[in-house]
Formats: sequence, structure tokens, C-alpha cells
Amino acid sequence: MNTHVVIMAGGIGSRLWPLSTPEVPKQFIDVLGVGKSLIQLTVERFAPVCEPGNFWVVTGEKYVELVKEQLPQIPAEQILAEPEGRNTAPCIAYASWKIQKKDPEANIVVTPADALVLKTQEFAETIAKALAFTAERDAIVTVGIAPTRPETGYGYIHATEALHGQLVKVSEFREKPDLDTAIGYLEDGHYFWNAGIFVWNVGTIIGELRAYAPQIAGVMDELASAFFTEKESAELHRLFPTCEKISIDYAVMEKSPRIYVIAEDLAWSDLGSWGSVQTHIEADEDNNVTVGSDVRLFGCRDCFVHTAEEKTVVVEGLDGYIVAESKDRLLICRLSQEQHIKEYSA
Amino acid sequence: MNTHVVIMAGGIGSRLWPLSTPEVPKQFIDVLGVGKSLIQLTVERFAPVCEPGNFWVVTGEKYVELVKEQLPQIPAEQILAEPEGRNTAPCIAYASWKIQKKDPEANIVVTPADALVLKTQEFAETIAKALAFTAERDAIVTVGIAPTRPETGYGYIHATEALHGQLVKVSEFREKPDLDTAIGYLEDGHYFWNAGIFVWNVGTIIGELRAYAPQIAGVMDELASAFFTEKESAELHRLFPTCEKISIDYAVMEKSPRIYVIAEDLAWSDLGSWGSVQTHIEADEDNNVTVGSDVRLFGCRDCFVHTAEEKTVVVEGLDGYIVAESKDRLLICRLSQEQHIKEYSA
Repeated sequence: MNTHVVIMAGGIGSRLWPLSTPEVPKQFIDVLGVGKSLIQLTVERFAPVCEPGNFWVVTGEKYVELVKEQLPQIPAEQILAEPEGRNTAPCIAYASWKIQKKDPEANIVVTPADALVLKTQEFAETIAKALAFTAERDAIVTVGIAPTRPETGYGYIHATEALHGQLVKVSEFREKPDLDTAIGYLEDGHYFWNAGIFVWNVGTIIGELRAYAPQIAGVMDELASAFFTEKESAELHRLFPTCEKISIDYAVMEKSPRIYVIAEDLAWSDLGSWGSVQTHIEADEDNNVTVGSDVRLFGCRDCFVHTAEEKTVVVEGLDGYIVAESKDRLLICRLSQEQHIKEYSA
Repeated sequence: MNTHVVIMAGGIGSRLWPLSTPEVPKQFIDVLGVGKSLIQLTVERFAPVCEPGNFWVVTGEKYVELVKEQLPQIPAEQILAEPEGRNTAPCIAYASWKIQKKDPEANIVVTPADALVLKTQEFAETIAKALAFTAERDAIVTVGIAPTRPETGYGYIHATEALHGQLVKVSEFREKPDLDTAIGYLEDGHYFWNAGIFVWNVGTIIGELRAYAPQIAGVMDELASAFFTEKESAELHRLFPTCEKISIDYAVMEKSPRIYVIAEDLAWSDLGSWGSVQTHIEADEDNNVTVGSDVRLFGCRDCFVHTAEEKTVVVEGLDGYIVAESKDRLLICRLSQEQHIKEYSA
């Protein structure tokens, strides 16, 4: 009853250009060709633990209409529009202060809009355990993903115990490691991928923000009197951009002593790059992955071709390339060079 | 005054897919990115030798509106619509019979719509010489292009004398040669590329068709009474499809004893393939050729990228590829494999 889910949907997904663009970022796109956008999949994933009326979305102003179209079941007043992006701490603060006004007993999950989880049942069970824990304790719970490879593209959570499916104290957070370090993490068993999913009750997160991000907390206190009134938008435009631009990780997670992790193998991916999307779509016998209704490959290997439905695409003689096409944009790039896509498309 | 130009514009240019499609074939497209379609360039090329009112276009029914849009100066009644393609002999017969009814003294050039000539002044002079020749003689003149490389993709004209800029008798026509033969032709000096351009007076071509293609001539004689009347379209639909499907080369050129050639170095190309188009657009320092307003290449060599104006295209790490994009079609193919494009796109 008091469970709320806050979906952070303000990113632009520049590493998935040209599929993801500032006009329609990846969370609003059917990246996997399954008939649902990533944010729709995210809502679906949390449906077992949260009533439809208790979802909240924080996004950029220009994406509000997209959210309404794709998630008509979410109350319009719970689609929160940031006047500008100030990183995750102000985003989470804004949602937390608003939720507290509506439901002072709220128990909250905060999640990105654009990740993928294949083990949805295990995921729901993990979230339910975390929520049960925070419902009765002044605790922050992070979700740790049991690593399946020495991934250098994610941050890690160092747990005090190498346990799965149970709440254990966090020792520390670690930035993206180099390969040797990542191999060590994988062997060690105490390290888990940080999925950027947080569970806490509203009193806990507001208390932590007051303690560790007092500037942001002060802004929210000033803003709170306008919540759910006709003055809210004007006040938000005046005050929100004054918030310190800082991530929740730096502002709170690295400082708070009350952080736990619940780790599990959830077949999770941040879908942050073409390579990570590719691994979630079935490949043909030449290890090519295609999305699109008329993609014709001749002599291609290890390619990922992602096109709009109505396109006829002929690709001959490519090995290890991304071919991605969306509206009036086209990308052809070696998968090994995909870290440069952001520069190429700038 | 009696000079007429007949432009054959019924082809679909399948080797230039996806730029050229059955809906809008290459003759109606600005293939070179110069602001004019190939058929517009063709009309421009003949302007020095022919009045605007004496141009004729023979094309497929579905291309008539495209011709009217692109060539508004051509009288609508001189845009001839074939109910179906029956190869070049019926096409030329239909135009010849109609022109004769309007101008029994007509002196005619027949040309493809989709070739390129860079030496336009020399071209006009060559055509003028040929027209002067056929105005007074019962002769067929072909235009021979002095070869600049041992091209295996064109047919050749074997002339009795190795002269340029003069009318000489043709010895015989040769099909596309293998490379050794083409090298021999280039060294010999008596062999010229067959540009598919023919010059004759209307009495000559009709006489030759009566002699060597009597079935087609009989159809045209039956059709002629309906020319320039409201019955013409119905009669054309009834009779034209009964014409033997045969090229003018097989029907007449290989049989007639009155064939001449005027050979010249005209910087001509049939623009029949991506490779041939590529050679006519200036390359960058890495030998890449691009058409499009926002094509960004990173680490590419020897590539040809051809896109619509409004596209943003990023290409990384390709060597020797065609990237061509048009409406809802995309091709990525090694230049060395372009002979297979027709199969790939079928």
C-alpha cells in the first residue's frame, strides 16, 4: 500500500545514437524489438510490487508528453518535469519530498528507466525483500547484480559478505575497474554490479539528504509549500536550477553508514551501448543480430543491424560492425570503436 | 529545323539500387549531386543541335508524370508512353513512325536518357557532323567513344578505319569482351565503345525496320492511323504488346549494310554502376567520394557514400564500400561485389 516506485527517465542515451537521440531517448524506444519501450518494460517489471497509482516518473520537460503516451496508467501529477538536468541527487530529492507530502509512510524504490532485467520473477522477489527491510528500518538498500563476466563498464558494490538473496552491509562503492581488477572482483565474490536501484523509506532518504546534501534539502523545503498547487511549476523553474548538480552516489551513498546490498543473479543489463543491446537479441548462425523486418545480410559476421520496421536493408561483406538507422540518421561503425559514437554524432 | 532528338527513358537502373528503383529510376535522379537529373542533363546536352519543340521521350506509362515535371519544355504529345517494355526496337519504331507523320523530313538522334558526357562541346560537334551526314544519305550513324581503359562492361564497335571525328564504315559490333580481348581492342585503335546513340533520317530507319523487322513495322503501320487522335492510347495498348521483344542492335544494327561510326573522346560514361558513378565525383584525400550534406567519415578509404540531403550519416572504419541510402532503402556493399546488387535487392 505504501510502496512507491520512482523511475528516473531524464537521460539521453547518447551511446545508442542514432536510435537514441535527444528528441526521443532510448528509454522511450523499443530497443530490443519486443513491442515495448524500455520504460514500459520497467513499469511492467515493478507491477508485482507496486500499485499503478503509486508510480512516479522524473524526466525532462520535453519528454512529459512521451511519458503520458507510453504510460497512460500513471497519474499525470506524478510525472515530474525537471526544468533542467541537475544529476540524480536533486531528481531523487524532488520526488522524495513530493511523495512524502502525499504519503508520509512511503516506502520507495528508485530505478533507472532504461535497464533490462530478464529474470523478472527473481527481480520482483529481490525488490520485495528490500522493501520489507526498509519498511521497518532506517536503511538504504542497493540492488547488486552478481557479475557473470569481468565487466569494466559498470561500477561495483563491495559487500561485507559474499551472500546472494540476503541483506548485507555494504563495505564500499567502487568506480569502473580496469580489466585485472574486474577479474579479481569476479573471483572474490564480494563484488556486485551497481544497478543504480535504491530502496528506502521516505523518512530515511530525506534524513540522509538533510545530513549530506543540505543545500538540496533547503531548496526542497522552500519548494514544498508549492507542491500540488498551481504555483509549483513557476517555483520549480525558479528553485530547481539552483540545486547543486551532484549524483546521489557522491551526495549520499559514499557517505551514509546505513547502506545495505541485496545481491542476486538477475540477468540485468544497463543497455548502455550497442554491444550490450546486441547480447540480448538472438543471433543467427553467423552471430549476426538484426532488428527490422527486411534486413538482408550477405557474407556478414558478428554484425548488429538495427533499423526501422519499414526499411529494406542490404548489407554485404561486413565483420564486426554496428549498422543502425533511425529516421534521418545512419551509423556504420565497428563494434570495437563504439565508445567513440558520442563524439562522431556530436 | 528538321532535327529531332528521341530520348529512351524506360529503364529501371537496377544496378544503382537503392538510389534507382522501379518507382523512380536513375534517369530521373540527380545521381551526381549536381542539381539536375540525368534526363535533364541529357536534354541540356542536345540543346545546341535541336529545338526544344523537337524533343521526344519514350518511357513507361508510370514515368510520364515524372517526365512532365522534369522537362516541362517538351510538348506533352511528344512524351510517348509504352504500355510495356518491349526492348529498344519497338520503342524506336514507335517514335520513328510518329515523327514521320509530323515531319516526313525528320533527321533523328536516338539517345539513352541516363548516360553522362563531360566533353559537351565536342559531343555537340560530333552529333552535328553525324546529323549533317544523315541529312543527305541513307545511312545509320553510331557514336563511338574512344576507349580510355580496357573496359569489359561495354559493347564495342569495330570501325574499318582508326579515325576520330570522321564518318567511317562499321565493320561489325562486338559484345562485352573479356579482359584480354579488351586490352587488344584498346591497343588496336579500330574499336570504340558503343554509346547506344544512333543518328539517321526517318526514312532510313523506317526502311531498315521494314527490311529487317517486318513484324514490328506491320504493327506500326496498323497503329499509325490512330496517331495524334483520341484512339491512340487504346490502339497502342492493343497493338504495342504484340511487337517482337528485340533490341535495335539485334533487329537492325547487326544486319544493315549502311552503318557508320563517328568516334571521339567524349569523356562518356553509361553511369551503369556505382563504380562508374563514383569516378565522376571528386574524391577526398582518402579517395572517399560522398554525396549528401552531412556525411562524416572516420578512418574510411576508397568508399562511396551517397545519401539524401537531409541525412546525418556517420561511417567508421570502412575500406572500399558503397553506402547508399534512399527513402526506405539502405545498401552497404563492397565495391568489388557490386555486380550482385541486383540479386541482393530483388
